[in-house]
Amino acid sequence: MSERKRKEEPCITMAHGGGGEMTQKLLKERIIPKLANDLLNPLNDSAVLPQVDGRLCMTTDSFVVQPLEFPGGDIGHLAVCGTVNDLVVMGAKPLALSLGMIIEEGLPLATLDRMVDSIAATAREAGVVIATGDTKVIERGKGDGLMINTAGIGVMRDDVELDASRIEEGDLLLINGNVADHGLAVMSVREHLEFDTDLLSDAAPLGSLIDTLLAAGGREVKFLRDPTRGGLSGVLCDLAADTGFSVEIEEANVPISRVALHTAELLGLDPLSVANEGKVVAVIGKDAADAVLSACKAHPLGGMGALIGRFTTATPPLVELITRGGGRRMVTRPYGEELPRIC
Amino acid sequence: MSERKRKEEPCITMAHGGGGEMTQKLLKERIIPKLANDLLNPLNDSAVLPQVDGRLCMTTDSFVVQPLEFPGGDIGHLAVCGTVNDLVVMGAKPLALSLGMIIEEGLPLATLDRMVDSIAATAREAGVVIATGDTKVIERGKGDGLMINTAGIGVMRDDVELDASRIEEGDLLLINGNVADHGLAVMSVREHLEFDTDLLSDAAPLGSLIDTLLAAGGREVKFLRDPTRGGLSGVLCDLAADTGFSVEIEEANVPISRVALHTAELLGLDPLSVANEGKVVAVIGKDAADAVLSACKAHPLGGMGALIGRFTTATPPLVELITRGGGRRMVTRPYGEELPRIC
Repeated sequence: MSERKRKEEPCITMAHGGGGEMTQKLLKERIIPKLANDLLNPLNDSAVLPQVDGRLCMTTDSFVVQPLEFPGGDIGHLAVCGTVNDLVVMGAKPLALSLGMIIEEGLPLATLDRMVDSIAATAREAGVVIATGDTKVIERGKGDGLMINTAGIGVMRDDVELDASRIEEGDLLLINGNVADHGLAVMSVREHLEFDTDLLSDAAPLGSLIDTLLAAGGREVKFLRDPTRGGLSGVLCDLAADTGFSVEIEEANVPISRVALHTAELLGLDPLSVANEGKVVAVIGKDAADAVLSACKAHPLGGMGALIGRFTTATPPLVELITRGGGRRMVTRPYGEELPRIC
Repeated sequence: MSERKRKEEPCITMAHGGGGEMTQKLLKERIIPKLANDLLNPLNDSAVLPQVDGRLCMTTDSFVVQPLEFPGGDIGHLAVCGTVNDLVVMGAKPLALSLGMIIEEGLPLATLDRMVDSIAATAREAGVVIATGDTKVIERGKGDGLMINTAGIGVMRDDVELDASRIEEGDLLLINGNVADHGLAVMSVREHLEFDTDLLSDAAPLGSLIDTLLAAGGREVKFLRDPTRGGLSGVLCDLAADTGFSVEIEEANVPISRVALHTAELLGLDPLSVANEGKVVAVIGKDAADAVLSACKAHPLGGMGALIGRFTTATPPLVELITRGGGRRMVTRPYGEELPRIC
């Protein structure tokens, strides 16, 4: 794009964040109509939700992914999926999200429009409303285009009991499909490999899939977690530390695409430690595992689902990968920033 | 501080945000113990709250104030006060906050420690818990030290009815003290005027004061709003637009300190448009106004409280200031960024 063209493109200015007429105009013309629901009201800083009766679940996540748009998704899609997923893996039915946007001066309004469209579409897909929001603008060079925080609340289902303390020896681990696609899709753009691969982010709202797993397994589904930052390794290390059991994973059973394996190799990354945004790890009592796996495979987000491992009493509690060759390798939690800013 | 000393100061690194061991260490050693409560659990991304029965209120705010520390407060204090206040002005009892921190690589750990201490102390003061959180790190030069998002949920009180549609001709406007202190205190540091003034930010959690006002006025307290971005002018313009009534304000009755007036003059700002963070504007039926004012003045956060104006049927609906000299001046909503990044 020529310099002249770029200058003509309408962009976010500091005035959009001052809380005055320009802020009102931005909200009323470009944001609120797209998120339209009865709870959002530009005059009120808070939303009043309908009566609830139950235990609440609350979560928050800030999204700082770069680039803002990547194969298979964008920061807006991610910001809704990430927070909805943190609720549904707890056994909660999502009620509402809040949306806090920190916009850098100079962000093209067209980019903001696309991100708000994406937030609105993903919220509809996930069956959740954006109940309240806040928009701030920071000076050029003090931010990074757009950062989004979403917080979410839900009501706990009372027909399930998801708690790592219920895990026993012999319980099985299920994942609903290929690992590492999200992190590798984002990294492939950052490393300019996107034309060499057709990797797409797997980001998706998991509510419907999790309803399916819980319907099939009931109370035998003992624990759910979405393997985001830290990847599958992070979740398994947390589980070993928290339960005192060891975890044994069969490398041959962990679903991963050929292109993801290849991309991870190019980037020098362990795919088990790469973030996913549309995956769930489920711990299931062994007698219910086949039924839950069948239900998973019949769901649009679970076709590549697999049972990948089990809990054992080996001590000290460790996570071990049984390799394709039959060897054993210890799986450790990534130490630092293997993959910065992929969510 | 010498360059040598600065280099030795322990700082946030990208590895603190990667979701691995370094992230766990940061959370477990420096953040979670200070916010200690039963709901926060480093393994779970979400918190499960006790049973509630009622209508919920939800709000969110991102805080990007610069500098992070200013006379009378800091970004951590502000991040708790702002969100708690958005709940209590709706007539909600705060239940829990979420805390999303976006930290720039290179932030001294000592600064982070002070901010977390401030968040913890303010939450205790406001009687609210930090139930869940998220921490991200972005590269040096892509952020601005520390940005904080807090979302909050509360349960609506059912003994009050705060709704702008209940406002009538003759209703009176109360404010609990001096306007403009927060915005001017922050701006005075940015403009290097801090040694010329003893202005302090007025940021404070308003729950206890609002309980007092509602106890004194009951249902005759018809509307509450905290005049943050956009200041008193912003709230009054919103009210005129929303109710169809005009608002008449007596300049002589609007509480403002001599030093704030002087500082606003130096900075070329209209103090009515400057953000407050410890103020509430209340609309009160005229027969209850004296009782509410007395209760306000007896509260530690309301000693300088005053009745500042009234609703009239003048058309078209406008906000007018009756000046000390007896003239009339129209009050308009600030257009753009009179005061960027003061919250």
